[in-house]
Amino acid sequence: MANFQLDGEYIGAIKNLVVENKDKKLKKQLHELHYADIAELIEELSIDEAIYLVKLLDSEKTADALAEVDEDFREKILDQLSAKEIAEEVEELDTDDAADIIAELPEERQEKVLSEIEDTEHLKDIRELLRYEEDTAGSLMAKELVKVHEDLSVLKCVNAMRKQAQEVTRVHSIYVVNSKNELLGRLSLKDLITANSRAIVKDIYIPKVDFVHVNEDVEEVAKIMSKYDLEAIPVVNDNKELLGRITIDDIVDVIKEEADKDYQLAAGISNDVEADDTILELTRARLPWLFLGLLGGLGSVFILKDFETVMNQPQLRSLFFYTPLIAAMAGNVGVQSSAIIVQGLANDIVKGSMISRLFKEIGLSLINGFFLAVVLIAFGQVMGQELSLSLTVAGSMMGVIVMAALIGTFVPIVLDKRGIDPAIATGPFITTANDIFGIFLFFYIAQVVLGF
Amino acid sequence: MANFQLDGEYIGAIKNLVVENKDKKLKKQLHELHYADIAELIEELSIDEAIYLVKLLDSEKTADALAEVDEDFREKILDQLSAKEIAEEVEELDTDDAADIIAELPEERQEKVLSEIEDTEHLKDIRELLRYEEDTAGSLMAKELVKVHEDLSVLKCVNAMRKQAQEVTRVHSIYVVNSKNELLGRLSLKDLITANSRAIVKDIYIPKVDFVHVNEDVEEVAKIMSKYDLEAIPVVNDNKELLGRITIDDIVDVIKEEADKDYQLAAGISNDVEADDTILELTRARLPWLFLGLLGGLGSVFILKDFETVMNQPQLRSLFFYTPLIAAMAGNVGVQSSAIIVQGLANDIVKGSMISRLFKEIGLSLINGFFLAVVLIAFGQVMGQELSLSLTVAGSMMGVIVMAALIGTFVPIVLDKRGIDPAIATGPFITTANDIFGIFLFFYIAQVVLGF
Repeated sequence: MANFQLDGEYIGAIKNLVVENKDKKLKKQLHELHYADIAELIEELSIDEAIYLVKLLDSEKTADALAEVDEDFREKILDQLSAKEIAEEVEELDTDDAADIIAELPEERQEKVLSEIEDTEHLKDIRELLRYEEDTAGSLMAKELVKVHEDLSVLKCVNAMRKQAQEVTRVHSIYVVNSKNELLGRLSLKDLITANSRAIVKDIYIPKVDFVHVNEDVEEVAKIMSKYDLEAIPVVNDNKELLGRITIDDIVDVIKEEADKDYQLAAGISNDVEADDTILELTRARLPWLFLGLLGGLGSVFILKDFETVMNQPQLRSLFFYTPLIAAMAGNVGVQSSAIIVQGLANDIVKGSMISRLFKEIGLSLINGFFLAVVLIAFGQVMGQELSLSLTVAGSMMGVIVMAALIGTFVPIVLDKRGIDPAIATGPFITTANDIFGIFLFFYIAQVVLGF
Repeated sequence: MANFQLDGEYIGAIKNLVVENKDKKLKKQLHELHYADIAELIEELSIDEAIYLVKLLDSEKTADALAEVDEDFREKILDQLSAKEIAEEVEELDTDDAADIIAELPEERQEKVLSEIEDTEHLKDIRELLRYEEDTAGSLMAKELVKVHEDLSVLKCVNAMRKQAQEVTRVHSIYVVNSKNELLGRLSLKDLITANSRAIVKDIYIPKVDFVHVNEDVEEVAKIMSKYDLEAIPVVNDNKELLGRITIDDIVDVIKEEADKDYQLAAGISNDVEADDTILELTRARLPWLFLGLLGGLGSVFILKDFETVMNQPQLRSLFFYTPLIAAMAGNVGVQSSAIIVQGLANDIVKGSMISRLFKEIGLSLINGFFLAVVLIAFGQVMGQELSLSLTVAGSMMGVIVMAALIGTFVPIVLDKRGIDPAIATGPFITTANDIFGIFLFFYIAQVVLGF
């Protein structure tokens, strides 16, 4: 099987089978499908069709698919299922996915669903996971893992592992603990296969094991796992007791979500939305930043009004023609500077002192500004504009570029120091601030130079 | 070991040891460090200090660290090493990292380094990898993997695996092949441990195995691996011969780089740069988009010049005060729309017909536009502005918003259909286009309504 392609024809065929209640054929068709493909298929159906499929197929098949489906769509499906039906799906899931799905339910339903779960061990694990705060390692980890006591022999360890491994989708490492469940180290499957079967775990385990604290931020976990190329990492509490493990597939999701969020923030979208969300959801995500932009624009109206008398001097009127150019340059430079700093902060690669960064940004702006100023002056000459006016516009543009670069650089740094996500600064926030300051600075410099 | 913190004190201590040539102490200090930490440390040193460390420590230790170091910094280090020294480092690396490092060298050095590699098998593999084009599965895969013939018994399979596994850092799956080296299926280590040792591989392997073609685009590989939560995927050629495998840690890097690139494109930065790159590199990455913005701004100058006579009518002069506002709204709306579409295209979730998308964008723009128009009119009233002027500004702003949303939505779609990365459309490209069209539309509508 290479890559499954969900095309219109296939979806249409499935929809037809649903309409005609061809249950046997449906089951046969979908039997071979990976749950990730079923999830994609479900998202292409109407809610009613999706619910029909979920109820028809075994929970074993649909549970993982449901866990993959887009959150909004899943909410609508779960709305139509009974607490017992949801509990059946949840029982099939690993504890981390189970807890995620239950956490999404309205509070009064959560207890109902939990009370329908029959496996008490599973239930206890899910309840534990529900207690951890969002975006912590605890909220991301699964309770499923393979662990062995340090005093076991390799042979017993293989047996213990066999038993536990049935519950665990993928075994990356076998964690070694003592009687207090403290994490001591790890064993790789490779080591286990190659070891003498009478050896004791204590003598062969690798004591060097990376781990994270249960309250660690997920972004930090992602950084550690990707830095050390880990495929799984154990999670411990203050006493170093082994609580669970986080696998790389969940980290891949964290990295992608984080990147999507930053991208949207940079583009002035405040909630997590997708192209196919409703108009209302999209409006709510987009209007706040547009409103900010509007306020910025109204601020510019004020500033420009102050310089209205300039319009009485025909040779100076051109200054007004340059306002969009100045605003655009200020905005673009600001966004560039902030994007570079925001990425640097995210990857911990912003080094050096504030002073050296200050000089670097000023130097960079002057170089860029110089080239742009040359073009601007050449343009003025071609247009037959007075040289003094061109020089003034070019000079103040350079001033505006320096200012915009400094704002774009230092606003994210200050936000980051105060514990605010600096990504919020890129995009409309910086653009709007720079529009206003830029236009003001432009006219102010022009006024000083040209003396109006 | 939890999380290693590279602080100024530690770096200072290492620098001192380097200056004082305390080789023994250095070796002892760095012995315990993970190669990813050594890479971070190296990046904090001067080139000379870094080279000192690389020459001092065993290649076994430094090779992986070098592979992790930032490309620009690595280039400077490799410049100072002899072909033989580089070959020694390369011999320690997995084939994929080895090929990456050699590919970065100037062409005439590549052959010199290759000719110094002693392990002929390793050399053959590296030469093969160097032939694959950038951004294909072949360029990302490693030749290291564990494979067994379908006719082996489980016992022999375990032995074969043990031998091969010494070369392979992490064993995810054991791939099953026939005599023609065709990929037939896979075995998990778990299955191998739990199987009867006299069973034949043929009878127990899982024939359902995901794979990718050696010429597949890496972004597509990333999508497949993250969709199906795979930790490794085998790579085959047209004849389904097993050529190599790609592991998830490399995919994590692909996902991050892709996200960084899109983010930078959206912010108007054309090359891959970091906050700590040189001023020249940063200028080269930033100037092109600023230049585009400048041209856009000069376009606006032309348009506004055409409406200069409006300045002679004092009651209409305010229109000029609104140009930055209009440009900002057009830019913001365009960037929002394009960001949502670009993300949707990247995640294959842009569904529905063009017509329905058209109506959705228009509806969304009218709703957003309406709220913003109300604020704008209220502002006009407070300012004592003529209502007809406020209404005209508000109305044309709504027109501009609709236009900006349509451009922001359909430019990426059209680019995508033509095989151009739509991410290039978000950011300065859309902003600049919308600035010009927005200002033109604004004055044009005002002219029609107010009849000047």
